[in-house]
Amino acid sequence: MNIRDYLHEQQKLVDAALGRWVPPASTPPENIHSAMRYSLFAGGKRIRPVLFMEAARTIRGEIAGIEDAACSLELIHTYSLIHDDLPALDNDDLRRGRPTCHKQYGEAMAILAGDALLTLAFQVLAQLPDVDALRKARLVEELAVASGTVGGMIGGQVNDLEGEGREPTPVLLESIHRAKTGALLRASLRMGAIYAQADRDQLAALTCFGEHIGLAFQIVDDLLDVEESSATLGKTAGKDAQQHKVTFPAVYGVARSHEMAEEQRRRALETLERFGSSGGRLRELADLIVHRRA
Amino acid sequence: MNIRDYLHEQQKLVDAALGRWVPPASTPPENIHSAMRYSLFAGGKRIRPVLFMEAARTIRGEIAGIEDAACSLELIHTYSLIHDDLPALDNDDLRRGRPTCHKQYGEAMAILAGDALLTLAFQVLAQLPDVDALRKARLVEELAVASGTVGGMIGGQVNDLEGEGREPTPVLLESIHRAKTGALLRASLRMGAIYAQADRDQLAALTCFGEHIGLAFQIVDDLLDVEESSATLGKTAGKDAQQHKVTFPAVYGVARSHEMAEEQRRRALETLERFGSSGGRLRELADLIVHRRA
Repeated sequence: MNIRDYLHEQQKLVDAALGRWVPPASTPPENIHSAMRYSLFAGGKRIRPVLFMEAARTIRGEIAGIEDAACSLELIHTYSLIHDDLPALDNDDLRRGRPTCHKQYGEAMAILAGDALLTLAFQVLAQLPDVDALRKARLVEELAVASGTVGGMIGGQVNDLEGEGREPTPVLLESIHRAKTGALLRASLRMGAIYAQADRDQLAALTCFGEHIGLAFQIVDDLLDVEESSATLGKTAGKDAQQHKVTFPAVYGVARSHEMAEEQRRRALETLERFGSSGGRLRELADLIVHRRA
Repeated sequence: MNIRDYLHEQQKLVDAALGRWVPPASTPPENIHSAMRYSLFAGGKRIRPVLFMEAARTIRGEIAGIEDAACSLELIHTYSLIHDDLPALDNDDLRRGRPTCHKQYGEAMAILAGDALLTLAFQVLAQLPDVDALRKARLVEELAVASGTVGGMIGGQVNDLEGEGREPTPVLLESIHRAKTGALLRASLRMGAIYAQADRDQLAALTCFGEHIGLAFQIVDDLLDVEESSATLGKTAGKDAQQHKVTFPAVYGVARSHEMAEEQRRRALETLERFGSSGGRLRELADLIVHRRA
């Protein structure tokens, strides 16, 4: 099966699991479940859950029910998008080609829907069937730290907000992106490895892959904001420059940023060599992440 | 030691633990750690952590380091206050006698500080020293469910928002408060019991105590909003009536509400009888909760 068909199949697997974990829109209070589902099922690519699942499969092959644990990453990612889009933060009206959560449901409901998705992520991990408590506790710890303020996603978001309008230097750029998107992508790989009971060296290799692929992902994300239209992206293009965000093209220029993304992809692939053919799908995902157009 | 001195000592124990778990304001990104600490250390009464600790001690006596796990409840409670105070929700300028978090740090930082406290609550539980993974996972599950949308805190907050201006009926009132404040207070007792490895009957009794004391707490809270001044409360008094909130005095009147609080206190005390003298501190806390003036 080619990687695009495979990815599509994996996305459906994740979507079905999300559909089971998030209460139906008919469960009271209906409005918040409807808002949570609106943002969750907006055509996201499920990159983090898929990276989680492939990391685990690289270690241990197919594992039944693996998509449940993978959902926790998409719940965190979606909450962060809802809150980032709020008027007080990035003030975005458009996300994945549709009105953002607060445009559709109002600000109060968007804040609470984000809170609820964040909370549900930990509930899912704690309630995983067929996973021992030791792994549950380690998964909760990984996800919480990666989502937190010290080197985690929220910390990166703060640096991003406070960086607006400041001189775009390599050091500031790194402090933003290693945390803002890097930490959760890295955690996707690490959590997959922990789920599959990887040994220390395997965990280290997948962590390293996660760091490189996380950086590549962010560089490409910044480049797309410069190079693509809003219609292609499904969100407002050119917003980074408009908000004077500290981005890779702003610091290194477009041409060098392309080179850097390629470099990170190459280094990510190097860390997979130890896994031989088991790392095949992760290799293809790395290519897809760097060469995507939206 | 009388109950007020004892409570003060317990509050200091919780504050010290919170101080260890929340990064210092000097840790980058400084601003968010400063905002988190501003709201955490604003003179809260630490009722939830204290209920947690006393539930555990009722089962198993003194346990070293118990205050660490108890912190998770205060982190959740504080995040919920920060988000509830936001302009899009209750739009409050004053909390515990000081400007609310968004008044002091701006809306963006208040949203992120709330997210960070919520996330940290689960990190604390996952990283508890000297607690086995089985209990960690159960504590995470209890806290997540009690904070969530289905019968949990966020669900209650949604019902509260959507109830504004609607006819104040007993059924609507119950749907709001059993979830909005009740679920986390109930969870405080249940988590303490789980932490102390209570048996099934002990857990059931403490759950029942938590339900009655949670209801008593909310009735008194609603009464204070009617009867006390903003200066005494440290927050804007009379806001419930002004926002047409569905409260106990609005549904049952002030006199009947006082009777109901007393009734709940009495029923809470009944559930403690099986614990004999071990339940002494919980009994005193129940009295204090019902007879408080702020």
